[in-house]
Amino acid sequence: MNITIIGYIIGWILNLEAAFMLLPIVTGAIYGEKELFCFLLTAVVSGALGLFLTHKKPEDLHFHIKEGCVTVSLSWIVLSIVGAVPFVLSGAITHPIDAIFETVSGFTTTGASILSEVESLPRCILMWRSFTHWIGGMGVLVLLLSVVKMTGGSRMNLMKAESPGPSVDKLVPTVRSTARILYTIYLFLTVTEFIILLFCRMPLFDAITTTFGTAGTGGFGIKNDSIAGYSSTIQVVITIFMLLFGVNFNIYFLMLLRKWKQAFHSEEVRWYLVIVVSAIVLISWDIRGLYDSVGKLFLDASFQVASVITTTGFATTDFNQWPEVSRSILVILMFIGACAGSTGGGIKVSRIIILLKGMRKELRQYLHPRQVRKIQFEGKLVEHDIVRNVNGFLALYIIVFVCSVFLLSFNGKDLITNFTAVAATINNIGPGLELVGPSANFSVFNNLSKIVLIFDMLAGRLEIFPVVLLFMKDTWRKF
Amino acid sequence: MNITIIGYIIGWILNLEAAFMLLPIVTGAIYGEKELFCFLLTAVVSGALGLFLTHKKPEDLHFHIKEGCVTVSLSWIVLSIVGAVPFVLSGAITHPIDAIFETVSGFTTTGASILSEVESLPRCILMWRSFTHWIGGMGVLVLLLSVVKMTGGSRMNLMKAESPGPSVDKLVPTVRSTARILYTIYLFLTVTEFIILLFCRMPLFDAITTTFGTAGTGGFGIKNDSIAGYSSTIQVVITIFMLLFGVNFNIYFLMLLRKWKQAFHSEEVRWYLVIVVSAIVLISWDIRGLYDSVGKLFLDASFQVASVITTTGFATTDFNQWPEVSRSILVILMFIGACAGSTGGGIKVSRIIILLKGMRKELRQYLHPRQVRKIQFEGKLVEHDIVRNVNGFLALYIIVFVCSVFLLSFNGKDLITNFTAVAATINNIGPGLELVGPSANFSVFNNLSKIVLIFDMLAGRLEIFPVVLLFMKDTWRKF
Repeated sequence: MNITIIGYIIGWILNLEAAFMLLPIVTGAIYGEKELFCFLLTAVVSGALGLFLTHKKPEDLHFHIKEGCVTVSLSWIVLSIVGAVPFVLSGAITHPIDAIFETVSGFTTTGASILSEVESLPRCILMWRSFTHWIGGMGVLVLLLSVVKMTGGSRMNLMKAESPGPSVDKLVPTVRSTARILYTIYLFLTVTEFIILLFCRMPLFDAITTTFGTAGTGGFGIKNDSIAGYSSTIQVVITIFMLLFGVNFNIYFLMLLRKWKQAFHSEEVRWYLVIVVSAIVLISWDIRGLYDSVGKLFLDASFQVASVITTTGFATTDFNQWPEVSRSILVILMFIGACAGSTGGGIKVSRIIILLKGMRKELRQYLHPRQVRKIQFEGKLVEHDIVRNVNGFLALYIIVFVCSVFLLSFNGKDLITNFTAVAATINNIGPGLELVGPSANFSVFNNLSKIVLIFDMLAGRLEIFPVVLLFMKDTWRKF
Repeated sequence: MNITIIGYIIGWILNLEAAFMLLPIVTGAIYGEKELFCFLLTAVVSGALGLFLTHKKPEDLHFHIKEGCVTVSLSWIVLSIVGAVPFVLSGAITHPIDAIFETVSGFTTTGASILSEVESLPRCILMWRSFTHWIGGMGVLVLLLSVVKMTGGSRMNLMKAESPGPSVDKLVPTVRSTARILYTIYLFLTVTEFIILLFCRMPLFDAITTTFGTAGTGGFGIKNDSIAGYSSTIQVVITIFMLLFGVNFNIYFLMLLRKWKQAFHSEEVRWYLVIVVSAIVLISWDIRGLYDSVGKLFLDASFQVASVITTTGFATTDFNQWPEVSRSILVILMFIGACAGSTGGGIKVSRIIILLKGMRKELRQYLHPRQVRKIQFEGKLVEHDIVRNVNGFLALYIIVFVCSVFLLSFNGKDLITNFTAVAATINNIGPGLELVGPSANFSVFNNLSKIVLIFDMLAGRLEIFPVVLLFMKDTWRKF
C-alpha cells in the first residue's frame, strides 16, 4: 500500500475544497451574512492542511487499483467531513452526524435532507448545500485529474473507481484530456441551463442553486416545497435538463465530434428514453383521476419520472399520495437509475441491459448446453469479465441493501419507510415513500440509522466496490 | 420437439393422479361424505385419459433438456388443473381460478389459501388439500421415474428440471434408483413424524394431514388457527420435522451409507443451522416484551423461524403483529429458503452461499485483476457454469419478482402486501405480511392478481427456468 500517494491526493482534495468554499464566502459577502466566516475558517484550515500534505510530491507515483479504491473512498469521506464543518460552526445543523448526513447527501448527489425547514437558512449555507451537488456530480477526483498534472502511475484506476457504470472508456488517449472533456461538457450544460432559467424569469440565486441541483442530479432545493412553487415553464426546463444530465456523457462527446450516427445509435440511451416515456404514459394514465388539467397532469408525471429515474429527487407534487401503480413504477425507476457515465445514480440502465441480456443468454444456454454464445452491447461483444463484474455488483448491491434494511428495522419504522429510505440513499435519489416521502425528511431516524444511510449514500455514489473494499483485510495486506 | 414422449409422460401423470385420488375417496367412504363421488368421477376421467395416452409406448424415447422443461412444466399444470376439479364439483370452492390457485398452492407446497374458513370443509377435501403437499414435496416426476420403467432417453433432464437447487447429483448410477432412494427416505421421515404425532395424542386425521403439510413443507392446515390450538409438545415435534424436511436429502443418504463424517461436514447444512439459530435468538430477543413465559416465547420464535425458512407456512401466532426487526428477519428468511435437494422452497441456502462466495471472489479479483481464483463449495471446486447459472437464476428471479409486484399493484393493495404476497408465493411459503399475513388469506386479490401468483408459485417450485422457457420462441422452434 503506497500511503504517501494517498496522503498526497487527499491533500489536493483539501486544497480543492478550500477553493470550493470561495463560492459560499462570496455569497455570504454579497448578502452580508456573518456565516461566511464559518466557511472562511474551514477553508483556511483545510487549505493549510492541504498545502502541508501536498508541499512535497511523492517520488513513487505508482499506484494500483487497491490504492485507487482506498484513495477514492477516503477522499470522499474527508471531503464530506470537512464540508460538514460550516454547518455545525454556523449552527444551521447542530448535531455533527446530521451535518455529515447532509453533506454526504450533497456530495453524493442524493439530496436526502434531515432539515424540515430550509427557507430560513442563510444564503451562503444554501449555496454551499447546492454547490456540493455540482462538485459531486462529475466527481472531485475527475476534476483533480483535469487540473493537476500527475505523471506516472495508473491514474485510470482513480477515474474507474469514481465514475459511474460497469466500464469506463477513455474518450481520448490521456486520462487528463478525458477528464477535461467531461468537465467541459458538464460546465457547458450547466451554464446553458442557468441561462435558460434566467430567461424564464427565475431569480438569480434560485437559478444558480437549482442548476447545481439539476446538473449533479442532486435534488437539494432552497424552498420547502422543492420546485412546486415555480412556473410551469421553469418546471418544463428543469424536467428536460434532469433528463439531459442523466444521459451518458460519451454521447455528448460523440456529438462534439459530429459522429451523429454513433451518438443516436446508443443502445443505452435508447432504452433510457423508452423507459422514461413508458413510465410517463403509465403514470399519467394511473393518476388521471387526480387532475382536472391534462397539461398539469402530464407535467407532474413527467417531472416526477425524470426526477426519480435520474435520481435527482426534486418534487413538484407529493407522489407518496399517488395510487399504488404509480408508486410501484417510481420504486422500480429508483433502482434502474440513469445511464452509466452520467451524473445520475441507481443501478444504471447499461447494467440492467447487460443483466437482461445475460439472463436471456443463460435461458438459451439452458436449452442448448453445447452452444457458445456471447452478449452484444452497443454493437460490441461484452467481455466475460464485465458480465461477471455486473453480476458481482448485483450480488453485493443486494447484500448491502438487505443488511441496511435490517439495521434500519431496529429503529422501529415501518417496512416501506425502511425499504424506500435505503433505496433512496443507495441509489442517490433523495426522497422515498411514507415517512421519507417528498413532503417529509430523514430526521425521523436515529443516529445508527443515519450512519447506515450515510454508508449507503457513499456506497451508491462510488458503486459499492471501493467502499466495501475499505473494510476488507485483503486491501490492507501487503503482498 | 418430441411431442409423443411429452404426451406419454403426461398420460402417466394422469394415471398417477387418478391413483392419488384413492386417498380422499377412502377418506370420504370412512366418514360417509358424499363429496367422495366428485373425486371418483375425476379419478375415472383422469385415469381413462391417462390410459389412452399411455397405451402405446412411443418408439422414440430420446429427449433433450428442452423436452424435459416443457414436460415438467406441462405436467405440473395438468396435475393442478385436474386436481382442482373436485374442489369445484363439490362446491367447496366455487370459482375455477380460486380452485386452481388452491391446488397449485398445494402441489407447489406453498400453502397460500383463498379460503378463510376450512374447519367446515368435508374431511375428504381436507385430506386431498394436504395430500397435494406431500405429492408436490418430493416431486411427481421423481415419483414417476421411480415407479415406471423408462429405458433410453436422458431421464436425468426430467429430474434436473423438477428437483430444487443449483445442481442435482445422482446419488447412485441410475436415475431410477436415485429416485427410489429419495422417495424411501421421504416416506421414512413422513411415517416417523406421523407415529410421533400420534404418540403426542394428536387425533389420527389431524396427524395424517399435518404430517403431509410438514413433509412437503406445504403449510395447509385443517384448523382456522393453523397449529396454534395444538399442545406445545406437538408444536415442538412439528418444529423439528419442518427443519428436518428442509435439510438436503443427500445428507440422509450419506447417513444411510454411514458416511457420517461427510454428512456432518456439509457446508450447506451447517450454514442452514447457523441461520436458523441466529434468527431464533434475534427474534426471541426482539419479541421478549410480548411474552410472560420464556418457554412459550422461545417456542413461538423457533416455530415461526422453522416454518418460514423451510417455506412451510404453518403458524402458531400472528407474526404480522410482531415488531419491525422480527418482521424484517422473517422477510429475509422467506428469500433464503431451505437447503437444495430438500422439499423446501426459496432461493436455497446453497445458492446464497455460492452468490456470497462469488461476490467475495469478485471483490478480491477487483484488487488483484491478474490472479485467477476459483470458488470452493462442499470441498469441491464450483464449475464456472454453475456460478453463471446461479447468477442467471438470480437475475431471472428478480425480473419475475419485480414484474409480479408491478402487476399486483393494479389491484390497489399496499406495497407491503404486494411485495410479501409475491415473496410468499414465489418462495412457496404461504403467508406474507399485512393483508396476506398469517391470520389473513389470498381471497383479497382479484383474478388477474391470482393468475400472477399462480404463475409465481409454479415458477418458484420449478425454479423458474422451466416455466419461463415455456414462453420462449426458441423452445418451440425445431433445430
